[in-house]
Amino acid sequence: MNKLQYTFSGKTTTWYLDADFGYLAKLVDKDHTVLITDEHLFAAHQKRFGGWSTIVINAGEQYKVQATVDSIIEQLIELGADRKTTLIGVGGGVVTDITGYVAAIYMRGLAFGFVPTSLLAMVDASVGGKNGIDVGVYKNMVGTIRQPQFLLYDYAMLKSLPKEEWVNGFAEIIKHAAIKDAALFRELEKNKLTTYQKDKAALAKLIKRNVGIKAKVVEKDEFERGDRRLLNFGHTLGHAIENLYELSHGQAISIGMVAASMISEEFTDFKETDRVIGALKRYGLPTLAAFNAKEVINVLRMDKKKVKESMNYVLLNKIGQGVVRTIPLAELEKLVQSIITAR
Amino acid sequence: MNKLQYTFSGKTTTWYLDADFGYLAKLVDKDHTVLITDEHLFAAHQKRFGGWSTIVINAGEQYKVQATVDSIIEQLIELGADRKTTLIGVGGGVVTDITGYVAAIYMRGLAFGFVPTSLLAMVDASVGGKNGIDVGVYKNMVGTIRQPQFLLYDYAMLKSLPKEEWVNGFAEIIKHAAIKDAALFRELEKNKLTTYQKDKAALAKLIKRNVGIKAKVVEKDEFERGDRRLLNFGHTLGHAIENLYELSHGQAISIGMVAASMISEEFTDFKETDRVIGALKRYGLPTLAAFNAKEVINVLRMDKKKVKESMNYVLLNKIGQGVVRTIPLAELEKLVQSIITAR
Ligand SMILES: NC(=O)c1ccc[n+]([C@@H]2O[C@H](COP(=O)([O-])OP(=O)(O)OC[C@H]3O[C@@H](n4cnc5c(N)ncnc54)[C@H](O)[C@@H]3O)[C@@H](O)[C@H]2O)c1
Ligand SMILES: NC(=O)c1ccc[n+]([C@@H]2O[C@H](COP(=O)([O-])OP(=O)(O)OC[C@H]3O[C@@H](n4cnc5c(N)ncnc54)[C@H](O)[C@@H]3O)[C@@H](O)[C@H]2O)c1
Ligand SMILES: [Zn+2]
Ligand SMILES: [Zn+2]
Repeated sequence: MNKLQYTFSGKTTTWYLDADFGYLAKLVDKDHTVLITDEHLFAAHQKRFGGWSTIVINAGEQYKVQATVDSIIEQLIELGADRKTTLIGVGGGVVTDITGYVAAIYMRGLAFGFVPTSLLAMVDASVGGKNGIDVGVYKNMVGTIRQPQFLLYDYAMLKSLPKEEWVNGFAEIIKHAAIKDAALFRELEKNKLTTYQKDKAALAKLIKRNVGIKAKVVEKDEFERGDRRLLNFGHTLGHAIENLYELSHGQAISIGMVAASMISEEFTDFKETDRVIGALKRYGLPTLAAFNAKEVINVLRMDKKKVKESMNYVLLNKIGQGVVRTIPLAELEKLVQSIITAR
Repeated sequence: MNKLQYTFSGKTTTWYLDADFGYLAKLVDKDHTVLITDEHLFAAHQKRFGGWSTIVINAGEQYKVQATVDSIIEQLIELGADRKTTLIGVGGGVVTDITGYVAAIYMRGLAFGFVPTSLLAMVDASVGGKNGIDVGVYKNMVGTIRQPQFLLYDYAMLKSLPKEEWVNGFAEIIKHAAIKDAALFRELEKNKLTTYQKDKAALAKLIKRNVGIKAKVVEKDEFERGDRRLLNFGHTLGHAIENLYELSHGQAISIGMVAASMISEEFTDFKETDRVIGALKRYGLPTLAAFNAKEVINVLRMDKKKVKESMNYVLLNKIGQGVVRTIPLAELEKLVQSIITAR
């Protein structure tokens, strides 16, 4: 096991990396803990859940909605959960986002922890305290920012993770490298997905490095007034097309990163869109998409990062160095239009 | 106008007491503000809302639920509300509780302010940052703690407040006096409701004093680990019977305060239940009720203040001095039973 700690708003969160699920019993009191997981995890790892009060939700982004929150709250009441209860989300980003959200609002806030089980949740979704749910086509429209007490990573649980979910995780890993870590980007350009699936040590190192990249950004800027915005690289357009076209999160932000790289070439000295495209392809991610620019722009207009008639957009100065620029919506509209036409 | 300031978790909240509704336009930018109010307020004070984006919800505790939150969020999306938007709740405690809650979760948090319009909201509900909604029979089961930027009190708006709502407000005023302010308690024992309805200066002084009592308690203990729990005097039993028997909040906690006073006589040196009953009657509040002890105890068991098999209960040492005691649930059950039988 490998312990990491980061401090957010004066409170310390502990990561137990390369740990065993069973170690949970050392971290919390079973009688005052409720696990929240989804049907896939519960089916694939049923033994691990033995002896724990567990709420099982439907799997998939379409269930990251208020109706699922309602149902979890009903079950918490039935289970007699009170202010002394700790909630633990065991699953991918959908489970960790919704568990963090329920923990923020149930009885005005319970303690909570995470056992992220998808690569994406390990390197990204479970890190940083953002939680929430979708409203219609609007991703994460409702939520709060609140940090878990601890996170436990059991890499053995990744054995059941479907291939396409590995790919989704690499979209965020490439994002981290692109905005913050040129050396990691070069590593990724040399390796491929199976390198990390086969070499446990390389995977453990990769995950730890990515937790570090994100946690350090959040430590400095928990409430997203500065550097944290860089983590939205590829996400502005990505979120818009994700729900509109039912893409996976990784696919959507992959396309978003390509678009943001191309837009970077207009606004900064960036000239390496090709390398971004190359890395994404290497890990099985799409870099092209046919979509309706008008529809996309309409959703963009509702994006949380919008400020009046312009928008904060994350661009690259170079590989390993992200930067936020304010772009007038009208200009952005033209660029998105031309990127689509160009293809 | 009369300005007051209190600081919670390092952030200052400003009260504009004895102000005019129109002053709102000086505090916020109309183009980036959405008012939330209920149908009664909107009908009684339509002119005041002219020129403001306003969301009107149904009036009444039965609408302090998720369905109303869903509807407000939909309307905010339609209005294009973004992170620069300020929400202002104009109404009684239902409106301020729900507005604060929506402001806490919409886009992970918007700035917000309150214009409390019921006496109860002015002296209690709008002060202290607790927000939330009910779930089934469970009051305030879901919510957060987050402070408004400002509160504006326009006493002229009280003209339309129904008599029974004045009475509800006095239940909380008597509560404040009972736990914190013996001199105020004596003042209340001399006056009556119409004293304050007729004498604007006396009313203004009373409201300011009550804001001060609550805000000071919250300043010292925003997250309710100590003294803030005193504000629950009468509320443990009160909340249980409020939703079970469809009593008004004031009626419910009035009965709750009588019960808590009687329980105090068992656990502390308190001997003045008669004065508590006298004061409550003076302001038109009920002090007796027929209810089913078993049913009440079942709801009590789910109360947020429950810790395992005992419960933190607010008692009085003497008039003006509240105290928290841990009472075993079994003992409490017997006492509640005997109080009911005794009547
Ligand atoms: N809070 C944040 O900062 C943040 C950051 C990034 C993403 N997210 C959110 O995370 C979500 C995406 O995360 P995700 O890709 O993990 O989604 P997910 O939770 O839907 O998981 C993807 C799929 O993999 C399955 N799965 C997960 N772990 C498994 C395992 N070990 N074995 C078998 N199946 C497994 C799930 O059941 C699901 O079907 C999105 O909702 C996104 O908005 C949040
Ligand atoms: N957050 C807190 O700390 C806190 C504290 C105490 C109470 N509360 C909550 O407050 C609520 C009770 O507050 P309330 O009694 O103000 O309830 P309310 O908002 O339902 O108001 C009572 C009634 O008076 C009407 N009304 C209010 N102001 C009016 C005016 N000026 N003219 C005409 N009609 C007016 C309302 O429309 C409603 O019908 C409960 O939900 C309770 O849980 C919260
Ligand atoms: Zn992402
Ligand atoms: Zn009350």
